[in-house]
Amino acid sequence: MPATTRPLLVDVHTHIYPPSYMDLMRRREQIPKVIKDTAGNEMVVLLKEEEGKGANSKGRPVGPQYWDRAEKIKFMDTHGIDVSVVSLANPWLDFLTPAEAVDAARQLNDDMQTYCETFKADHAAADSTSYSAQTGNRLFAFGSLPLVPGISTKQVLQALDQVKGHSYLRGIVMGTKGIGKGLDDPEMEPIYEAIAASGLVVFVHPHYGIENAFGEQDNGHALALGLGFPFETTIAIARLVLAGVLDRHPTLKLLLAHSAGALPALSSRLSSCIVHDPHVKDRLQHDFRYYLGQMYYDAVTYGPEELALTERVVARANNYESKDEQLAYVDRVNERRDLTAPEGVFPGTDRIMFGTDHPFFPPLEGQGDRWKSVDENLDAIAGVAGWGDAERARVMGANAVDLFGLEV
Amino acid sequence: MPATTRPLLVDVHTHIYPPSYMDLMRRREQIPKVIKDTAGNEMVVLLKEEEGKGANSKGRPVGPQYWDRAEKIKFMDTHGIDVSVVSLANPWLDFLTPAEAVDAARQLNDDMQTYCETFKADHAAADSTSYSAQTGNRLFAFGSLPLVPGISTKQVLQALDQVKGHSYLRGIVMGTKGIGKGLDDPEMEPIYEAIAASGLVVFVHPHYGIENAFGEQDNGHALALGLGFPFETTIAIARLVLAGVLDRHPTLKLLLAHSAGALPALSSRLSSCIVHDPHVKDRLQHDFRYYLGQMYYDAVTYGPEELALTERVVARANNYESKDEQLAYVDRVNERRDLTAPEGVFPGTDRIMFGTDHPFFPPLEGQGDRWKSVDENLDAIAGVAGWGDAERARVMGANAVDLFGLEV
Repeated sequence: MPATTRPLLVDVHTHIYPPSYMDLMRRREQIPKVIKDTAGNEMVVLLKEEEGKGANSKGRPVGPQYWDRAEKIKFMDTHGIDVSVVSLANPWLDFLTPAEAVDAARQLNDDMQTYCETFKADHAAADSTSYSAQTGNRLFAFGSLPLVPGISTKQVLQALDQVKGHSYLRGIVMGTKGIGKGLDDPEMEPIYEAIAASGLVVFVHPHYGIENAFGEQDNGHALALGLGFPFETTIAIARLVLAGVLDRHPTLKLLLAHSAGALPALSSRLSSCIVHDPHVKDRLQHDFRYYLGQMYYDAVTYGPEELALTERVVARANNYESKDEQLAYVDRVNERRDLTAPEGVFPGTDRIMFGTDHPFFPPLEGQGDRWKSVDENLDAIAGVAGWGDAERARVMGANAVDLFGLEV
Repeated sequence: MPATTRPLLVDVHTHIYPPSYMDLMRRREQIPKVIKDTAGNEMVVLLKEEEGKGANSKGRPVGPQYWDRAEKIKFMDTHGIDVSVVSLANPWLDFLTPAEAVDAARQLNDDMQTYCETFKADHAAADSTSYSAQTGNRLFAFGSLPLVPGISTKQVLQALDQVKGHSYLRGIVMGTKGIGKGLDDPEMEPIYEAIAASGLVVFVHPHYGIENAFGEQDNGHALALGLGFPFETTIAIARLVLAGVLDRHPTLKLLLAHSAGALPALSSRLSSCIVHDPHVKDRLQHDFRYYLGQMYYDAVTYGPEELALTERVVARANNYESKDEQLAYVDRVNERRDLTAPEGVFPGTDRIMFGTDHPFFPPLEGQGDRWKSVDENLDAIAGVAGWGDAERARVMGANAVDLFGLEV
């Protein structure tokens, strides 16, 4: 461990497009695709909202920050990030045929392993800013699975075996479509079972947003990213929970992008809607709110008030273990038993982890080297009312070390 | 004022279907419609999710609690609600032709005025539970406007004049479609201008949810109500703000259903996505978060942790008045200026108001007369960490008295 006493900073939400993946997108005519703008610069077009709305809205600049490891390290050093757990950026392999997806996953998992293991920290830099000077381990990664329509369970499990065999891969990144029908698809059962048994972390991340919701006015992709993405994650996880996945696989480790989107803020409303609906009221073993304490969250909320809510919904979750507790609500109120989250202690900070979403949301003009998007998320951690050094240290890095078993 | 010292309790989110509206729905073949189940009981079918999924999912029981004023008063007495500001339930007049909508709005506004003004509190009951024994004013209402595609601004403004002339109507209820293209439609401008000038409160409420998001598994309407509704409100208000409506009409009083859905939890993310998007980054006069302090919220969150967030995002809003403040974020962090919401004081409680969503979410089997959905929202107010009697009294009723100018 280095001499500095500042807490370890681990980024669990940071993406790359390896060169082999860039090549896949360069060959495509439809989104996702990489095109050149009139000046010859490469642009990545990921969202429908980025297509066909004038010369300025044909995508986002894509360059070495997406694939060059030196750029990732430079970004990490600029922001004091000791370790990154990188993941393939969306839309992963979703657009490939089963055969293509199997090949691409195999290649990408090898690429990811190489990306991490061939890195040795520059000791001069590491002495001053990194906890990882001894091991040189500043990079770990999520692997990818060929999760596409028509894939066989066997092919997915073979890819999972490959990931398990790669020492630097500590999880898998997963979109919200599963193998086509969503994360509540019964066909996902053997996959969840195998992932839970592997101990690998599943990083659930959005890409598709929601359909036909943003109207005729041109708001660029602000609403697709700002609302569509978190809504997609919220829906996917609500469906997964309602399908009983966490009842059947309580050891499955789900890490939810963007602090699970709107799930924390709508979890009590969802609980109420569930118990009032004859179709689902008896389906789950626990109150819906209980399951929020079974999952993990990145801290990518951009504000301390929002981040505080994520902590609170985890903190209160065990109070909702029993359905009877919830269904006897009126009795509970009359008895004045307190089911709110405990005050003054912050158990939810055990399940929240710093992230940046690099290389998306790059620095604004005139803002220098530091990225506003990163500083807002760091400041969110610094600003949650009541949190002390211990809570901040857990969220900044210690939780990630524990969850991913990082040798730093 | 009565002798009791308990705070006034005002319900700002409580619906009715007047008899003339029930007749409209009984005559229809498509949703929204009222049908009879095999036992001859009337069922209201409002959502796509309620159609065609087996004999038990053909809608929700609809009975006198939707139109009989005595049922409303009984519900209010059971839960200690002194005053209700009732509104037409969704989907309002959205499904009518312009000519039908004009007639229906005129009839409904008259019905609403009559519903309120012909009520005189039963003094025996009022002496014990109501603040309104002197005036008999326990009911106020939102009016309706003929907001449908093809309507003329003139017709809308005529209906607004009718509402202004009805003494018990203190606002108007509005869906998220505006006159067909949403609340960011430039055609809405003269309507917003007239409403802002009138001083009437606009209660913005969802109905449509979102499309094609909930997958193949049968989850009843739990997700449509639990997530689709709040997502719809969130999107509608984000679009309205991005269209500059609150920049041009800063005195417009918007009351947002279900505590604005996911808007509080995603407001910092939205702010970040806006400033990073070249299409919208220079459009607004303020940081997106500022506008959350310009609106009003019901307290229909079902949980104290969620309700606390609504208060916090209002409390911090004025810190984001300047865009320069936001765009110089990195400088701000370096200077360690604190832009989090103030601790220990709760200015956001000035803009939050108790609501029930009656007569939806009726009591669960075996739960007696009190409604779980109401008790959860009362308990949320009671349970927010840090709030004292003054904050709770504002949220329970005093804010509504001020905002609507209630003579109670």
